[in-house]
Amino acid sequence: MSQIRLHANENWYNPLSEIKDTLIERLSDIDLHVYPDPDANRLKKELSDYTGVSEAELICTNGSDELIKIIFECYSKAGDSIVIHSPTFIEYTVMSEIRGCKTCAVDPNDDLSPNIDEIINTSVKENASITFICNPNNPTGYLFSIRDINRIIDSVPGIVVVDEAYVEFSQVSLLGKEYNKDKVVIMRTLSKAFGAAALRVGYGIAAPKMIEEMNKVKMPFNLSTVSQESAIVLLENKERLIQIVKNIRRERMRIYGALSALQENTGRIEVFPSFGNYILLRSNLTTDIYTALTDEGFIVRNFAHDKNLENCLRFAITQPKVNSQVVDIIRKVVSA
Amino acid sequence: MSQIRLHANENWYNPLSEIKDTLIERLSDIDLHVYPDPDANRLKKELSDYTGVSEAELICTNGSDELIKIIFECYSKAGDSIVIHSPTFIEYTVMSEIRGCKTCAVDPNDDLSPNIDEIINTSVKENASITFICNPNNPTGYLFSIRDINRIIDSVPGIVVVDEAYVEFSQVSLLGKEYNKDKVVIMRTLSKAFGAAALRVGYGIAAPKMIEEMNKVKMPFNLSTVSQESAIVLLENKERLIQIVKNIRRERMRIYGALSALQENTGRIEVFPSFGNYILLRSNLTTDIYTALTDEGFIVRNFAHDKNLENCLRFAITQPKVNSQVVDIIRKVVSA
Repeated sequence: MSQIRLHANENWYNPLSEIKDTLIERLSDIDLHVYPDPDANRLKKELSDYTGVSEAELICTNGSDELIKIIFECYSKAGDSIVIHSPTFIEYTVMSEIRGCKTCAVDPNDDLSPNIDEIINTSVKENASITFICNPNNPTGYLFSIRDINRIIDSVPGIVVVDEAYVEFSQVSLLGKEYNKDKVVIMRTLSKAFGAAALRVGYGIAAPKMIEEMNKVKMPFNLSTVSQESAIVLLENKERLIQIVKNIRRERMRIYGALSALQENTGRIEVFPSFGNYILLRSNLTTDIYTALTDEGFIVRNFAHDKNLENCLRFAITQPKVNSQVVDIIRKVVSA
Repeated sequence: MSQIRLHANENWYNPLSEIKDTLIERLSDIDLHVYPDPDANRLKKELSDYTGVSEAELICTNGSDELIKIIFECYSKAGDSIVIHSPTFIEYTVMSEIRGCKTCAVDPNDDLSPNIDEIINTSVKENASITFICNPNNPTGYLFSIRDINRIIDSVPGIVVVDEAYVEFSQVSLLGKEYNKDKVVIMRTLSKAFGAAALRVGYGIAAPKMIEEMNKVKMPFNLSTVSQESAIVLLENKERLIQIVKNIRRERMRIYGALSALQENTGRIEVFPSFGNYILLRSNLTTDIYTALTDEGFIVRNFAHDKNLENCLRFAITQPKVNSQVVDIIRKVVSA
């Protein structure tokens, strides 16, 4: 049986075939034996066009993961505290451990929304070097308000990382708003909306002075020529790719609606409003739902044993047919 | 004027066109939206065939640079000492600083060969977490004997990293020899002999237990699918690519001979025997030589202001015509 990957928030709309042709043509021209551009200048130009920030405010990395590592290397030392809101993306904690930092995870409210006051209190009390905000949050789908983000930025002692990996699905960015640019790094990626997880291209947006500091710890040739060149082609075609994101947003609304109805009718699942390309469910039947989906070839993310995510399960929103199949299977289990 | 890059030890023999065709075909099949294989299993299989070690003894990284970082994260903590032999590859020192370690650089003998006793003494005295051996050494071209390497391995307290980035040009590897596998990581790369600097593919060879430890700090998706797939194609064609390395070794002998003759005849340059794909020169005329080469479009590496490399200059060995042009320009300056 073929497996349908819905566990990694991948964007299952393949790049349009015309883009792929351009991509292959461009890759054919690469001199494989020459080291990559350490500054990714041409890629930064495209990202500048896309984001509206200057090239001096950009850093390109081997996925967001490398950017998280660079931020730790630049803005923390062993023994420092850092603050995250639980539940969230696991890599902040992983990188914190590698750096020898203490990770302070702030528990959520009952509805899994973040406890803003407690994030601030903890960061202040611990004199945190870094406070992470994942917006929209993975895996809950929660969207922080810009006001809350600014309250955190203005209250905590160290720098604030705003992870906007899924921003194209939420359409709410800190970028373009008023905020204290001296202490913020915004993280982005081409792995999600641009459907390029295979390439590993992330980028950071920060004040030029912070970019300079981060460049000092960045590995000189961190991003392969192939990844740089492919990312450039995708960004040249951003209008078409962003069109796909609209389809996913529409589908997310539809599926959220269907699952909300199921919640209302049966009371046996809880669905969380999501601003990402995924939906999180909570249910006493999670194990049954997981098994039923797996039996039909749908790989989803089972958080059954994660702190603050007991009985939770996450799946990616993708093409209508697949999304409907997932809902049908869930409905069948829940209505049994 | 076109620029000829001889400053980065790149292998200017492009992959044969048949290989490039296969490469493009293989890249066309990649699902861009799917995350890479975190374990690079198919690549490890090819590397296992190439090196003769098992897949459990391999780790694949985003260039050797990332492997150095992983080694620091795994085997050192802030405040530890690490030992290098000066002059050598700069990234050991860069990564040491990022980790918050103290770098103890052991000065060379007058002929720039490493002072083995002093490497051992320093490592013991400083209780070094990591001792780096670059073999053959970049930029001097010096080849450590296996006996000396083993003496270091058996005498120092922490782990020993043997950087074999240029091993195909020296044909002398620790691999296959007797050595204490519980404390050694051998570093390799496809950037040099395989001419794939653009792809950023490095790999480490170590005991399975050490590989497991390093995997714990490795970023899960550190190597893009495109890099993995391209590396596989290159390794499938290793016999043809290694043939190119033979040409470079032959050229290195020829150029070393020509420059040695110039040394003997004029006494105005000193050429160091090299086991890499590059040659290091020392001369009071280095600035003149550098300027003359630059004027003719040859970019070479000028170490004029580096400690232990005063008046030194390094250039890559490449196609016969280019190599001869470089020698001619040097001869002209030296004979003026």
